[in-house]
Amino acid sequence: MTTNPSFEDASCPVPLAHNDRIVIGHGSGGKMTHDLIRKVFLPYFDNPILKTGDDSAIISFSTGSKFAITTDSHVVDPLFFPGGDIGRLAICGTVNDLAVMGAAPLYLTAGFIIEEGFDISLLHSILLSMRRSAIEAGVSIVAGDTKVVQRGKCDKLFINTSGFGIIHDNISISGANAKPGDMVIVSGSIGNHGIAVLAARGELGFDTNLTSDVAPLNHLVKSILDISTKIHVMRDPTRGGLATTLNEIALQSNVSIHLEEKNIPVLPAVRATCEMLGFDPLYIANEGKLVIIADPADAHKILAALQNHPYGRDAAIIGKIVNQPAGHVLVRTEFGSSRLVDMLAGEILPRIC
Amino acid sequence: MTTNPSFEDASCPVPLAHNDRIVIGHGSGGKMTHDLIRKVFLPYFDNPILKTGDDSAIISFSTGSKFAITTDSHVVDPLFFPGGDIGRLAICGTVNDLAVMGAAPLYLTAGFIIEEGFDISLLHSILLSMRRSAIEAGVSIVAGDTKVVQRGKCDKLFINTSGFGIIHDNISISGANAKPGDMVIVSGSIGNHGIAVLAARGELGFDTNLTSDVAPLNHLVKSILDISTKIHVMRDPTRGGLATTLNEIALQSNVSIHLEEKNIPVLPAVRATCEMLGFDPLYIANEGKLVIIADPADAHKILAALQNHPYGRDAAIIGKIVNQPAGHVLVRTEFGSSRLVDMLAGEILPRIC
Repeated sequence: MTTNPSFEDASCPVPLAHNDRIVIGHGSGGKMTHDLIRKVFLPYFDNPILKTGDDSAIISFSTGSKFAITTDSHVVDPLFFPGGDIGRLAICGTVNDLAVMGAAPLYLTAGFIIEEGFDISLLHSILLSMRRSAIEAGVSIVAGDTKVVQRGKCDKLFINTSGFGIIHDNISISGANAKPGDMVIVSGSIGNHGIAVLAARGELGFDTNLTSDVAPLNHLVKSILDISTKIHVMRDPTRGGLATTLNEIALQSNVSIHLEEKNIPVLPAVRATCEMLGFDPLYIANEGKLVIIADPADAHKILAALQNHPYGRDAAIIGKIVNQPAGHVLVRTEFGSSRLVDMLAGEILPRIC
Repeated sequence: MTTNPSFEDASCPVPLAHNDRIVIGHGSGGKMTHDLIRKVFLPYFDNPILKTGDDSAIISFSTGSKFAITTDSHVVDPLFFPGGDIGRLAICGTVNDLAVMGAAPLYLTAGFIIEEGFDISLLHSILLSMRRSAIEAGVSIVAGDTKVVQRGKCDKLFINTSGFGIIHDNISISGANAKPGDMVIVSGSIGNHGIAVLAARGELGFDTNLTSDVAPLNHLVKSILDISTKIHVMRDPTRGGLATTLNEIALQSNVSIHLEEKNIPVLPAVRATCEMLGFDPLYIANEGKLVIIADPADAHKILAALQNHPYGRDAAIIGKIVNQPAGHVLVRTEFGSSRLVDMLAGEILPRIC
């Protein structure tokens, strides 16, 4: 149990002269989000559990039990998109944040902020989707809250889901555990979610058959934890895409990640859309993909297990961990040159999750 | 651990023909909120933990440990009001939902939805207030999330806080535990929060010196749990006010609650404002008050302990539990007549928390 020192320590940890304003990029999941969290949020909530930078907080009790806790607010626009909706997203996002820490997700809470005038039949559809996703993941929604705001004071519906899971013995997975020599595996093609949501907004000017990959990954995670004890890092690369997630890991583990561009699975529809719009698929959000960093001795076994599961069929080994340049991600292009891949800088697709 | 039966059970539990729309009253915390939850939300999330109707879900593990989990979204308008702000509200609301179940609050998550253009100096003030309230309550914020939506797509800032606490042995507190003969105690004057927020909106047309009662009540709760094992029900009467909370308890316990109007503490400023606007203080939100229903043998001891604490100084015994009419709350007016006090019907003060 972490206790904050005393009421007297409640002084302001940072000077209060700030003239800046929140911009869309602060919600990108990329560099600006990281800066906002590091410079604005963390000084106030500083505690050893929050600081790890992983997808869930890990709490150890004196009984030896270890739990994972996480939270995620969902503001996706539009509420319904090919392959999913805000309800499925809200369940899967939180289930996945627990699962990638090696936790078995058990209990979720759901907080709804609804705009006055919202169509209750749409609410039914979204709740049904949440129910189906929760059943698929094997989690129960144990607490809820509903707030209604006046017309124009929120955009239709926002859903916060917080989650609670149990971590079984001998599992120690963290973004800080990547080691030189480890292999980098992705569980399938990247960018599907972001491009599917963009298409659903009607902003592409053409149709795609693309669907979001939004899915609960806890069963997929279990299938690889069951066969390997050498998984060092797991993450789901959501906002900010694969590039941002790998940069976070490179920083947390103080290693370098080298990717082979030709091995990174990207569907033709995603590739074509990205080329047309000048996007890089490495920065497009996913909602049903895993990145795994594991000991090379188990990498092919893990790959085979992933490919054996419906949500991991297109899994691939896409790179490896090396020592230098520490804290950086490099990708070797199909032409043989290497380029540095930074975190997402601004924001390319707001409100993607 | 609750597991949902199987993926095949994911059929729609209610017919999908609904022409209704969400109205402000659905967020009142009163009767319309209850109907929405019972008719729309519960059929989809039906499980034995969620159904209890208490302020937190209680989860028992096979190890014998019992935990409480809760969630609350905060959309208060304005963000700053006399005596508090959305940050203090977000911490205290969730701490109190745990505390009234007899849980020691330990860990909170915080999810921020921020409108583009929001002044970061205001964010600092709100985070400082959260920090101070968390330190006062002795809880740690262990996980967070930040989303940014475009200008006009939310009202400045919404904060969801979810909470996790541990329930010590021998504590069994629930809205279903009120017994005929029990005494009803309130920890202080009612309606302060609602009227203070209303005044901060500038809608009163006159000034008051009233401040919100928003406060973390876990230490107050501990002070009475330490001296009595005969506390049957605890609640914090927030949205919907004391009347709605007592109606919930009367229904959950299938008892009748009889109040003495003259014993219910109401500050003169609240009383005057309510009289002027035609409100009943029984329906005005509180954010730092407890209702306790306890065995008469311990009632005066509990009252004394409450009055000994800064947040319980004006505590009073305000009524008792009887058999009939079951599921109803009656108040004996200062003139000796009795009137039925129902749940809040529509919405008198939207976005109060």
